[in-house]
Amino acid sequence: MTGTQIDHLIQLLAKLPGLGPRSARRAALHLINRKESLLRPLAEAMAQAADTVAPCEICGNLDSVQPCAICRDPRRESSIICVVESVADLWALERSAVFRGRYHILGGTLSALDGIGPEDLNVGALIARASEAVVGEVILATNATVDGQTTAHFLAEKLAGCEVQVSGLAHGVPVGGELDYLDDGTLATALSARRPV
Amino acid sequence: MTGTQIDHLIQLLAKLPGLGPRSARRAALHLINRKESLLRPLAEAMAQAADTVAPCEICGNLDSVQPCAICRDPRRESSIICVVESVADLWALERSAVFRGRYHILGGTLSALDGIGPEDLNVGALIARASEAVVGEVILATNATVDGQTTAHFLAEKLAGCEVQVSGLAHGVPVGGELDYLDDGTLATALSARRPV
Repeated sequence: MTGTQIDHLIQLLAKLPGLGPRSARRAALHLINRKESLLRPLAEAMAQAADTVAPCEICGNLDSVQPCAICRDPRRESSIICVVESVADLWALERSAVFRGRYHILGGTLSALDGIGPEDLNVGALIARASEAVVGEVILATNATVDGQTTAHFLAEKLAGCEVQVSGLAHGVPVGGELDYLDDGTLATALSARRPV
Repeated sequence: MTGTQIDHLIQLLAKLPGLGPRSARRAALHLINRKESLLRPLAEAMAQAADTVAPCEICGNLDSVQPCAICRDPRRESSIICVVESVADLWALERSAVFRGRYHILGGTLSALDGIGPEDLNVGALIARASEAVVGEVILATNATVDGQTTAHFLAEKLAGCEVQVSGLAHGVPVGGELDYLDDGTLATALSARRPV
């Protein structure tokens, strides 16, 4: 019915989270009607991101530089590592602007149902980092879900051998909630009031 | 906080209709995690669309060929022209799969509030097309809104000089509704039961 190239564009846009077939059609028209101001810049930004963005080899954060901007920032404390499930959670914590240490991205949680074990997560590198003399504290900031808390307990046991204090996020994180959906104030409170586990 | 290239990508994604800042972040992560299967193909589809998609010089439809696939299709009746406000409306009618004639895209409606007059719409070309001997009927399929119906009346007067039957969509289009949001069955009914104005 429509041009095959437009159809192709709509089909790909419909694969984005939050866009269905109808909103993908709207988005395609919106883009084509704004060729120079939006369509071309977005195509270039995507091609550039595909070429340059990769997981940081230290922490797993996504960035176009290696190591990532947070790992290479000398103003950030190297003594604290905050362990999060995903890059989205790192972004949520950065928006709260309270934490000034480093991060470690697990890449998920342990999950018996989905068959995800410790070997599927970025755990070995975390233990190695926590064993470095400069690191004094590891904050386990996994989500307050069953899988997230199971993972935190597993990591706390693993980290018992390292000479670090292990802490978790404090009150403020609603049970069953996910970090990426919290408001910045709640996240800031939870970070400031963190407690040993 | 995040890589500047990722930030740039998120800012552009947030300009799409239906995506806010949070869903733009989700979409960016979704894309970066599917570099080869989605991010690169989408970047290429966008670049190609920016290079090739343009309004058809006959009807105003968007396509990557000139004239568009509908205007160049010999199986479609040249005797009927269906006038719609936008390409989204053309797509909606094509999905109903009842109409086998040609289209004409107005590019909007008359609107006193927005200062849109006949000279801002694709009206001259429509009169020229309707004056051709082969054309026997013009269907005014503007939206059932105040502006859409005002435009239809204006066009009906303009077309009175041409030797064509002028018709409008029949019952089935809800008052105040827009074509792009109708189900295909209602659109098919409205097309089949069209009546002279």
